[in-house]
Amino acid sequence: MRIAGQVSIDDIPRICPLLSRTANPQYGEHGTRVVNVAGVRFGGERPVVIGGPCAVESHAQTVGLAHAVKRAGADMLRGGAYKPRTSPHDFQGSGLEGLCILSVARQETGLPIVTEVMDPRMVAEVAEVADMLQVGSRNMHNYTLLAEVGRTRKPILLKRGMSASLCEWLGAAEYIAKQGNMDIVLCERGIRGFPSGEYSRYVLDLNVIPAAKMLAFLPVVVDPSHATGVSAMVEPASRAALEMGSHGLLIEVADLTVGEPKCDGLQAIDAATLARIVRFAQEKKSVRSPELAAESGKERRPSSALKATAAFPS
Amino acid sequence: MRIAGQVSIDDIPRICPLLSRTANPQYGEHGTRVVNVAGVRFGGERPVVIGGPCAVESHAQTVGLAHAVKRAGADMLRGGAYKPRTSPHDFQGSGLEGLCILSVARQETGLPIVTEVMDPRMVAEVAEVADMLQVGSRNMHNYTLLAEVGRTRKPILLKRGMSASLCEWLGAAEYIAKQGNMDIVLCERGIRGFPSGEYSRYVLDLNVIPAAKMLAFLPVVVDPSHATGVSAMVEPASRAALEMGSHGLLIEVADLTVGEPKCDGLQAIDAATLARIVRFAQEKKSVRSPELAAESGKERRPSSALKATAAFPS
Amino acid sequence: MRIAGQVSIDDIPRICPLLSRTANPQYGEHGTRVVNVAGVRFGGERPVVIGGPCAVESHAQTVGLAHAVKRAGADMLRGGAYKPRTSPHDFQGSGLEGLCILSVARQETGLPIVTEVMDPRMVAEVAEVADMLQVGSRNMHNYTLLAEVGRTRKPILLKRGMSASLCEWLGAAEYIAKQGNMDIVLCERGIRGFPSGEYSRYVLDLNVIPAAKMLAFLPVVVDPSHATGVSAMVEPASRAALEMGSHGLLIEVADLTVGEPKCDGLQAIDAATLARIVRFAQEKKSVRSPELAAESGKERRPSSALKATAAFPS
Amino acid sequence: MRIAGQVSIDDIPRICPLLSRTANPQYGEHGTRVVNVAGVRFGGERPVVIGGPCAVESHAQTVGLAHAVKRAGADMLRGGAYKPRTSPHDFQGSGLEGLCILSVARQETGLPIVTEVMDPRMVAEVAEVADMLQVGSRNMHNYTLLAEVGRTRKPILLKRGMSASLCEWLGAAEYIAKQGNMDIVLCERGIRGFPSGEYSRYVLDLNVIPAAKMLAFLPVVVDPSHATGVSAMVEPASRAALEMGSHGLLIEVADLTVGEPKCDGLQAIDAATLARIVRFAQEKKSVRSPELAAESGKERRPSSALKATAAFPS
Repeated sequence: MRIAGQVSIDDIPRICPLLSRTANPQYGEHGTRVVNVAGVRFGGERPVVIGGPCAVESHAQTVGLAHAVKRAGADMLRGGAYKPRTSPHDFQGSGLEGLCILSVARQETGLPIVTEVMDPRMVAEVAEVADMLQVGSRNMHNYTLLAEVGRTRKPILLKRGMSASLCEWLGAAEYIAKQGNMDIVLCERGIRGFPSGEYSRYVLDLNVIPAAKMLAFLPVVVDPSHATGVSAMVEPASRAALEMGSHGLLIEVADLTVGEPKCDGLQAIDAATLARIVRFAQEKKSVRSPELAAESGKERRPSSALKATAAFPS
Repeated sequence: MRIAGQVSIDDIPRICPLLSRTANPQYGEHGTRVVNVAGVRFGGERPVVIGGPCAVESHAQTVGLAHAVKRAGADMLRGGAYKPRTSPHDFQGSGLEGLCILSVARQETGLPIVTEVMDPRMVAEVAEVADMLQVGSRNMHNYTLLAEVGRTRKPILLKRGMSASLCEWLGAAEYIAKQGNMDIVLCERGIRGFPSGEYSRYVLDLNVIPAAKMLAFLPVVVDPSHATGVSAMVEPASRAALEMGSHGLLIEVADLTVGEPKCDGLQAIDAATLARIVRFAQEKKSVRSPELAAESGKERRPSSALKATAAFPS
Repeated sequence: MRIAGQVSIDDIPRICPLLSRTANPQYGEHGTRVVNVAGVRFGGERPVVIGGPCAVESHAQTVGLAHAVKRAGADMLRGGAYKPRTSPHDFQGSGLEGLCILSVARQETGLPIVTEVMDPRMVAEVAEVADMLQVGSRNMHNYTLLAEVGRTRKPILLKRGMSASLCEWLGAAEYIAKQGNMDIVLCERGIRGFPSGEYSRYVLDLNVIPAAKMLAFLPVVVDPSHATGVSAMVEPASRAALEMGSHGLLIEVADLTVGEPKCDGLQAIDAATLARIVRFAQEKKSVRSPELAAESGKERRPSSALKATAAFPS
Repeated sequence: MRIAGQVSIDDIPRICPLLSRTANPQYGEHGTRVVNVAGVRFGGERPVVIGGPCAVESHAQTVGLAHAVKRAGADMLRGGAYKPRTSPHDFQGSGLEGLCILSVARQETGLPIVTEVMDPRMVAEVAEVADMLQVGSRNMHNYTLLAEVGRTRKPILLKRGMSASLCEWLGAAEYIAKQGNMDIVLCERGIRGFPSGEYSRYVLDLNVIPAAKMLAFLPVVVDPSHATGVSAMVEPASRAALEMGSHGLLIEVADLTVGEPKCDGLQAIDAATLARIVRFAQEKKSVRSPELAAESGKERRPSSALKATAAFPS
């Protein structure tokens, strides 16, 4: 019985000649391409932590949270001006006004911004404000959008589709790379499985982190907020993701003292929890045994012979 | 433990006020909105059969197949001019040239055309040629595209995302409806599950057909080619889908005597098999027991009291 | 990256030398081993229909239903004396008393009986009453039980585990065959997937029917009651299963006029619906086009050259 | 649409009156029942590490590995004398001889033993040698076996079924508890999902750990060997599991210098890697921030008022 459309990870060098490790031996077995977002280095010396609201709702909410995220020690600010919602009648984000608020938040705090873009016609506009463009899970297979963000020179955060195979995820990244933009960070955010909805929102699939790192040289981060959907699980899931080799975290934060956010409040954590996660991320190297430190050192840069080449733009 | 983002089918009237049966009592328990595509009636008296190549490759291939599809008795022609592929380095469809070929095929055979659109900026162009616009599985969550096709007056074939819940699928349809376009046909095409790839490409989920029909009033069709990925399964899966209440079928056909198609050849059937499927679809009513004929009659139109209203534009 | 425990359907001849088609060329490409249960022939001339209560609750309920099932034209009676339940505090079946009631029902109606056995120490006892022993979905991987039922000379109905691959399912059947009992009927009953619970109980996986038939020579039947969990879906799912090539159906029936059954009432149908399904099953041959009739004829018996051999004990 | 068999985690107090936190308020919000296995305390002060071969193959192999596991600092020895295999023609374990070898290994190293039992008729025999009985994933729904191990006074390691919901898993534990045996340790070992087999054997579902701990008071451990199926993933997955709150680890170890084990060699780690994991497990408390240390302290014992009661037999 032969089945149409069958690919396996053995096909990744053919699917992704620009991104697969095999097709790009200069990265060696463990080298990661460092993606630099206004000085924040994904795949660099230590994990990156991004915090912020699910959606930009108002100036006060977003700028207030940005300061809290900054004080917690996080590296970047997240926040959606455009929100993909199951129903078209639900809050769809604050749009351009939201982008302006994010811009103010960056100016006030100095935190680089990542925000989602959903419309290929809006890419230029969003890229004016954002330091990093997010392609969300629902649009991972939106090849038109992937090509469009690939034409910008902005780093891209590419979330995994909710049932995307590793081949499909790396193939989606290749659509961006094909346009000349190699600054791509992969983001695991939970997959659909039979437990979706019984005790967590999605199934956090940490196995994909080492797998993606073995097969491609891009940094990989994790969104524990969507992957769990339960605020009490976000902190342990963050630590787990870092131990599994994640290069960073994308976390939803809310000021729960001022009322429930307009979307996904049940998965938001407060700034004090974020601060503990940041501390954990920063201490990762010091708590490692020597063997592991050596090994994770290897993982973060290409073999020394190649260090001086132009292949690593960071 | 409260989980973010939880919705159930009980929320469908709120998610889909335009499309849910509860919110639109004029359709009764069994009434279906008939979607008329150049005279072909989805949700009408008998199931609709659409056949054609996976991708438009050449004039000879497509026009030749169109004639074969016509001779087999099918109602419409399918064929992709723009193809979403896992790798950006694979054949992406023949684009505008493909649209022109489809146009010729329609002229020569009289068969209405359904073809996929992936870019919101191309909707007008594709709509010039197509009688029905297909939004593919990979773009079911692409709300920008959904809104854009909703602004046309063309009927839309909305494929289910490969791990979309029923709430998400109907929510996606609502994005189209919200723009004023109610001519939507839902298409089940297989979902991701652990058996994906062991013996079939996807898991054909026929249970969703009666469920979608109970909750919304749109016609529902099935794509047995992608749902199985195995040509020998397409004919029995077609019959099964019709018995489960599908209003039609979307089937990939190839002339296997002239060599393997550029994509998905292993799931294509030949014209003789298509002809048997068409015959089965046409005979559906006559082989039903009286009880069932009565019931399926009810399923295809709203209660008689409402028949004369303007609500049913077919 | 090499993964432990990887098998594919290409390994089936090695996993199942007793049951795989490749390893048993006497069955040809389409021959089915007919399994004879007190005169009822699974894999024979026409599909088999088994109906009956989920659980044997009382003499009146079971014998009453047995007569109704008989009048509806079904071939066999099902009914659980031992019920596997999620909670140990729920009704666990009526046990020995239930077996006695089933025995009476058989005497009164002449219908052969299939009932579940869960304990290897009870196999002999259950086999005294049952014409066919059912190994349930929860015990498909219970190799101790499989070997024990393999040591009886009773035909076995082997349900698919709720997330069993085809390799695992056929491997489970091989455990029975290895003990010398080749009278095995496979039963698909729905698998776990993300839609489990949204609009149906399990995901009815009809693709596995032609796949199992291509790879092994055992008859395959379907349990539409568990696979849907929704009584209104049972009839269309039954027809769909037969069109997909199922050799029979295992259906839960209840007399809903006397109150809700102790388990799974929401998926039970009444005797009138069962009668329609039986009629559909019996008319299957006559509504087939000649090509298909020929083909399905081939599917039901081995190539004529082999007909006279001792290999087909039916 | 009402669906049969629907339960949610809100039903757990009813499904599991003996084990659910709600029904047993003496455990408070965070108290864990400590399960004592010959002095090894699951749910106690620090995570437990169990190492050993997949299968007991020979005296030299098992005793040699037992010494290596001991030197690596692990707490217990694992090893299968009875192995559930997909094919009945594959190596099924060394049976009684294997039990004897395990007994010797215990005597020589002092490590308590956990080993799998699959047959209810063998429980007494296996319990003579084992300090803890394992019920494997394939038998999680084998209620006959669960009741039988519940009748022993041995602690039970209950693996999660490969597609078991949390309700079903806790329900299975309740079958053991109902017989009077409350010494149950839950073990997550990966679930079936669409990625099974693409880049890992199963999907490691860490979200279920905090969920199980919120809903019941039993210790929860993780088997990273089966959950990943890739030896290079076992160490990071072990650390991740501990960060997610796992009370311990069950890991396959092999001496890869002497050739590939008879089963699952690709997921085995060597003793040096095990030693690093043990060190990580032992240092867990010291690397915690004060807030977390306090919190995880709370998690490990019931509120002080209840400490003196007879409810906690450890």
